[in-house]
Amino acid sequence: MTKLTHISELGEFGLIDHLTQDIVANLPSTVKAGGDDAAVLQYQSEEIIVSTDMYVEGVHFDLVYTPLMHLGYKCITGSISDIYAMNGMARQALVSLAVSSKFTIEALDELYSGIKIACKNYDIDLVGGDTTSSKSGLVINVTVIGAAEKKDICYRNGAKEGDIICVSGDLGGAYAGLQVLEREKRVFMEAPGAQPELSGFDYVLKRQLRPEARKDVVEMLKDLKIVPTAMIDISDGLASEIMHICKQSGTGCMLEEEFIPIDENTSETALGFNIDPTLCALSGGEDYELLFTLPEKDYEKIKNLPDFTKIGEITSKEEGCKLNTKSHNKYDLVAQGWKHF
Amino acid sequence: MTKLTHISELGEFGLIDHLTQDIVANLPSTVKAGGDDAAVLQYQSEEIIVSTDMYVEGVHFDLVYTPLMHLGYKCITGSISDIYAMNGMARQALVSLAVSSKFTIEALDELYSGIKIACKNYDIDLVGGDTTSSKSGLVINVTVIGAAEKKDICYRNGAKEGDIICVSGDLGGAYAGLQVLEREKRVFMEAPGAQPELSGFDYVLKRQLRPEARKDVVEMLKDLKIVPTAMIDISDGLASEIMHICKQSGTGCMLEEEFIPIDENTSETALGFNIDPTLCALSGGEDYELLFTLPEKDYEKIKNLPDFTKIGEITSKEEGCKLNTKSHNKYDLVAQGWKHF
Repeated sequence: MTKLTHISELGEFGLIDHLTQDIVANLPSTVKAGGDDAAVLQYQSEEIIVSTDMYVEGVHFDLVYTPLMHLGYKCITGSISDIYAMNGMARQALVSLAVSSKFTIEALDELYSGIKIACKNYDIDLVGGDTTSSKSGLVINVTVIGAAEKKDICYRNGAKEGDIICVSGDLGGAYAGLQVLEREKRVFMEAPGAQPELSGFDYVLKRQLRPEARKDVVEMLKDLKIVPTAMIDISDGLASEIMHICKQSGTGCMLEEEFIPIDENTSETALGFNIDPTLCALSGGEDYELLFTLPEKDYEKIKNLPDFTKIGEITSKEEGCKLNTKSHNKYDLVAQGWKHF
Repeated sequence: MTKLTHISELGEFGLIDHLTQDIVANLPSTVKAGGDDAAVLQYQSEEIIVSTDMYVEGVHFDLVYTPLMHLGYKCITGSISDIYAMNGMARQALVSLAVSSKFTIEALDELYSGIKIACKNYDIDLVGGDTTSSKSGLVINVTVIGAAEKKDICYRNGAKEGDIICVSGDLGGAYAGLQVLEREKRVFMEAPGAQPELSGFDYVLKRQLRPEARKDVVEMLKDLKIVPTAMIDISDGLASEIMHICKQSGTGCMLEEEFIPIDENTSETALGFNIDPTLCALSGGEDYELLFTLPEKDYEKIKNLPDFTKIGEITSKEEGCKLNTKSHNKYDLVAQGWKHF
């Protein structure tokens, strides 16, 4: 068995040096990364986009079934998704960690390896952070900095009546994957020797444990010279995200249930838990797909691309935010948000 | 008694709206603050300076004796101090909070009022953040963004042999204040009805509970057309900070104990606890003063200003990092860092 190293053996400065020793800044916009009081960047004429997200053990992740490498990867992809949702490119990340003394250096290396792989995959420089101890669980805060030309930035408030509502990829998978993991945790708690039954759930497990951010969508839109009128990423579920767009744009919307893209594996998994797959898409969250609105003429350019699905239209504010079900009943959408408190 | 409001009564979106309702972005560099996936900034020709710090209950602060308003204030000043240490001006902050369900809205309002007062005092826009729940204690992460002209940025690696080592203000006060608070906590734990004995300790308590960042020092240096050769803020104690500068600059140093500026109130408090006041300065931390090096000719411009004290000189790497004591013994400096793990 490999010897494990307690964090206290390295001390604060040793730990920081250890975790950041092989990090190299690659981007022209990174002037100075790490090793000083702050990082230094140079963005020239572009506007700077900055977002911060906190991930808390027992709230956002459960270490019983979350491999640390996947967790590191997900914290980066979940965070950079906000930059793509502004139609920008993510460039730099800063990661703060609070870790309890039960963690070993080897465990932190696992976490960091996921962080580094995500940074490499998305062409992001890790430029700074903070590492401290925690009296209880693991807390990770990721700040991401990116950029876009002023004319390309998409806010939530530009949707217009008659705009088409589109979404990338498919929805509900991350929530379905969570149900599988929670079930296996219950089984494990009751019978610690039991083998987990995870086969056949690969797709939804990947959606939950190691989601990707849609950098490719921002690149595709740029190539097609499309600037959405409004855009947001789906971290809390389709319902609350479209309602954010409608509230800020002063509009309503009509979503068509039959068009909401849901993978077969997601549907089967959800039905196995007696959950309506549409509910997974509307309220499940963590899919990190991009939801955007655009005029009919721009929609024509993407309507045959497999990555995008038209799921409804922007209506007037007076019409409210509605879902037209498969059986043609119209219901008001309800925003869930998180229920952590 | 005023009715207290449980966080769950507002929900996620309600809570964020409540906390950020009266926040107004004032700076020309803030294009969009809050209410979208990310904040948008515009910095033009300046270089961007960015830093992130995490503050954990039970590690960095103790809510038994820390008023929430002061805590909010200190998290901002402690974080922006890193930007001043680069010789830049702090402009925007993003604050992530993880709060346990025991917190009331009124308690979070207290915390936020301190954050807002600090932002106002230092001319900073609060442009974003994240609010989530915590299974245990309070965790606060602050990311600060600032800027400076390229020619003005001070790294840690520019100190030269023969440079004068200067420090702003006085040192050790924050650590002395912590001793007073810890003593009163012990008294309170043993006899909950006892009145705290805090009178006469005003100065050191303010240094601990509500420290200021030295924006004024950066402004003074600019007015005097001085760019230090190296600069760092004193968050971990004078010893480890000067050793960071020496390590990165490839130099040694000789600090003169007799010149280290220590307030009379700090000395008296430390001696009352049988602690050497010099030790408070060397290893205490949290003073948030600026430590910098500069050539003799620049030192001439500031030597009569009461805010600055010459405390030693940069020497060659071979001479090591030393302290010349009041009794003229020369000891190697020891970097403490934190000992949280």
